[in-house]
Amino acid sequence: MRDHLQLTPDGQLKHLLTLDGLPARILTQILDTASSFVAVGEREVKSVPLLRGKAVFNIFFENSTRTRTTFEIAAKRLSADVVNLNVGASSQSKGETLLDTMANLAAMHADMFVVRHAAAGAAHLIARHVAPHIHVVNAGDGRCSHPTQGLLDMFTIRHFKGGFHNLRVAIVGDVLHSRVARSQIHALTTLGCPEVRVIAPKTLLPRDVSNLGVHVHHDLAQGLKDVDVVMMLRLQNERMQGARLPSAGEFYKHWGLTVEKLRHAKPDAIVMHPGPMNRGVEIDSEVADGPQSVILAQVTFGIAVRMAVMSLLAGN
Amino acid sequence: MRDHLQLTPDGQLKHLLTLDGLPARILTQILDTASSFVAVGEREVKSVPLLRGKAVFNIFFENSTRTRTTFEIAAKRLSADVVNLNVGASSQSKGETLLDTMANLAAMHADMFVVRHAAAGAAHLIARHVAPHIHVVNAGDGRCSHPTQGLLDMFTIRHFKGGFHNLRVAIVGDVLHSRVARSQIHALTTLGCPEVRVIAPKTLLPRDVSNLGVHVHHDLAQGLKDVDVVMMLRLQNERMQGARLPSAGEFYKHWGLTVEKLRHAKPDAIVMHPGPMNRGVEIDSEVADGPQSVILAQVTFGIAVRMAVMSLLAGN
Amino acid sequence: MRDHLQLTPDGQLKHLLTLDGLPARILTQILDTASSFVAVGEREVKSVPLLRGKAVFNIFFENSTRTRTTFEIAAKRLSADVVNLNVGASSQSKGETLLDTMANLAAMHADMFVVRHAAAGAAHLIARHVAPHIHVVNAGDGRCSHPTQGLLDMFTIRHFKGGFHNLRVAIVGDVLHSRVARSQIHALTTLGCPEVRVIAPKTLLPRDVSNLGVHVHHDLAQGLKDVDVVMMLRLQNERMQGARLPSAGEFYKHWGLTVEKLRHAKPDAIVMHPGPMNRGVEIDSEVADGPQSVILAQVTFGIAVRMAVMSLLAGN
Repeated sequence: MRDHLQLTPDGQLKHLLTLDGLPARILTQILDTASSFVAVGEREVKSVPLLRGKAVFNIFFENSTRTRTTFEIAAKRLSADVVNLNVGASSQSKGETLLDTMANLAAMHADMFVVRHAAAGAAHLIARHVAPHIHVVNAGDGRCSHPTQGLLDMFTIRHFKGGFHNLRVAIVGDVLHSRVARSQIHALTTLGCPEVRVIAPKTLLPRDVSNLGVHVHHDLAQGLKDVDVVMMLRLQNERMQGARLPSAGEFYKHWGLTVEKLRHAKPDAIVMHPGPMNRGVEIDSEVADGPQSVILAQVTFGIAVRMAVMSLLAGN
Repeated sequence: MRDHLQLTPDGQLKHLLTLDGLPARILTQILDTASSFVAVGEREVKSVPLLRGKAVFNIFFENSTRTRTTFEIAAKRLSADVVNLNVGASSQSKGETLLDTMANLAAMHADMFVVRHAAAGAAHLIARHVAPHIHVVNAGDGRCSHPTQGLLDMFTIRHFKGGFHNLRVAIVGDVLHSRVARSQIHALTTLGCPEVRVIAPKTLLPRDVSNLGVHVHHDLAQGLKDVDVVMMLRLQNERMQGARLPSAGEFYKHWGLTVEKLRHAKPDAIVMHPGPMNRGVEIDSEVADGPQSVILAQVTFGIAVRMAVMSLLAGN
Repeated sequence: MRDHLQLTPDGQLKHLLTLDGLPARILTQILDTASSFVAVGEREVKSVPLLRGKAVFNIFFENSTRTRTTFEIAAKRLSADVVNLNVGASSQSKGETLLDTMANLAAMHADMFVVRHAAAGAAHLIARHVAPHIHVVNAGDGRCSHPTQGLLDMFTIRHFKGGFHNLRVAIVGDVLHSRVARSQIHALTTLGCPEVRVIAPKTLLPRDVSNLGVHVHHDLAQGLKDVDVVMMLRLQNERMQGARLPSAGEFYKHWGLTVEKLRHAKPDAIVMHPGPMNRGVEIDSEVADGPQSVILAQVTFGIAVRMAVMSLLAGN
């Protein structure tokens, strides 16, 4: 879904819907802004007044406590008024259309919609119809996109590796159903990463994987050879019952990241995971809690990245 | 439910429970106060400190994301501390009485209860027993009353028509099950509107409709003739399955507001709807999104009206 | 669960997990601090800036609107940023471990976790593994502990009786399943109360009751003789269907506190209940609403006590 709906005519960020098609200039602007907010989280008083008096609506058509919380914290740190809406429970059941629900919320003087929806393209649809003063942030729609997750991954890599230009990055696991893998591939490529690998069984790869400009591996040890960054994907529980996979145990045997497998990567390679982790399925606890894991740092950086996006969109 | 529980001995608003019996003086005071808040919503920083340090409890025994959100936004704009309580899920299941639940919440230094309950009279019951320093706002109880909806309708009419004294107003649809129709009729009459019409099939009219001082019409085109304001009512989904109505399609054919039907009203008539809309049932999309529709303005004015009520009740 | 996990090496409160093992010095410090906050609740503007910029996460693995609300109000009065999380609904269902969930939330720059969990020891487990800058408050875990309830009871007794040294206190009802009875017994003893009685049927007493240093009574009238304080316990609905009890009516006959039974206590004895009350089961309405009842005062003091705990743990 490559489009410029998310940029103003003069090239500024208006909505954040997908990382696809977002120029390196904007990606870098977000990462740089996030850097300035990392320090805010470490201060005694963690607020800045950039969104004072602005109303941020967290509109979750699909439940995700974790993602909702990171946006809520980020908005509160920016001094915004935050309203949480679990819309699934209410208006939808009253037969109202998605666009009517959003138009109503917009009429309540909202300044920003953070939207999570099970349907791919929901955030785009909303951005296309929303009142002009409102900014839309996609907090995950279908399998399609979860741009702030992609951004916090980029922030984490840049933080630990200093940049992207000499890196080998491996993305491991269920690429087919991942909201984030595509965004990661796009962002890495745009930011200058010369080699992105995808490591997965054939049944968990999209058919068009060869068009994404990545190297495909079907062997974990081989694929990890000399990489600088290992980005694990979550294996969703519901996939494990499907026909595409034998069992969680079998998956772990071939695709689970263990200390032994990780030895094929560079000695200073970092290990990332978007959470929530399935320990003993896609990742071993020894790795998840080990010295190369930066998984909790990702969460912390996620707040700063969301503050950056919100303040660039609607900051005073 | 005509009573003076909601006024202090010297005639000031103490609770807002119903529009029935509320004198024109109070109605006008609320509308005038709301006018001053409309501008607040348009400022960069949307807060005023009138309820700073006051605790507003949004107590929803019945789920209504939309109504809860408007009160939450209004309270936050007044700088109140807002606590949302979905009480259905908790204390009620523990066998506690309604009044014990409320007495407990009152003991937490609450200043205002915004109450939504499925039972008619719940807000009155609470107001009758609550500690004297607490103000109660009825956010909808049973079919009975939803006074802030009625007030925002009055505000909208006054805003677009300048007053009530020369108006013909038509209320269209399911009057029988409407929380708002009675309040609207009462408020319109009190504010000096000379002609209120009710347009509905016989099965959707209350038996005592003739006592309400309205003109009853059973034909939409005829009823709309030369009116200044068309107030549509929502047809609730569950009604459509009942014996009172043939089908949604059949209802639309006779009672749905189309552009063609609307031509019977005055050319500058405004069209209102309390939401959520059933497009293609009680209202056609062409009307809902057309130039005479003020439906989203109603939502925006709803914030200002709720700010007015809260600040009149408990403002510093 | 007597442990010093909750104190720093130099004896300051780091977490509040249980009243067991908490020295009188700390108990008294909390009660004294709470006294200073009682006045805050009565002021026009009810906030103090002691937790400004701090993030308090109310993490409820088990639903409890009432307890969650008191902590939310207390945190807001201290000017903290409050995030409510109903974790049962989300991460848990995604197969994440409790400690991973907590580690993730900690990585969002949380300063305090208020935790409610159905499993005994959950708050201890979290406190043992949480990042060093985070403070944990147990808001109820299993049957085991609910320390802020115990503290507010102590506050209430001290407020109405001036101290503990000459008191006879009776705890009445379902001691076996009570989260609070053990904490109350421990706290009363530590604070110098010379005589604590437990009044209950044998089937609702823990087997080790004789080790708790209390006098056991199996007759309500006899047990209440000349006591200064009557602390009723809630009879949980689910117990009434079990084999341990005949029926609610039968229970009331023998163990329900009536005006008549209360006459056995001292004329100025106070009656307490942790709520929610089962009127007509463990307590008669005439007592619950009578002049000796301090049940609603307990709720009000609960806010001050929670403010005290939070500000001692994380106050600027």
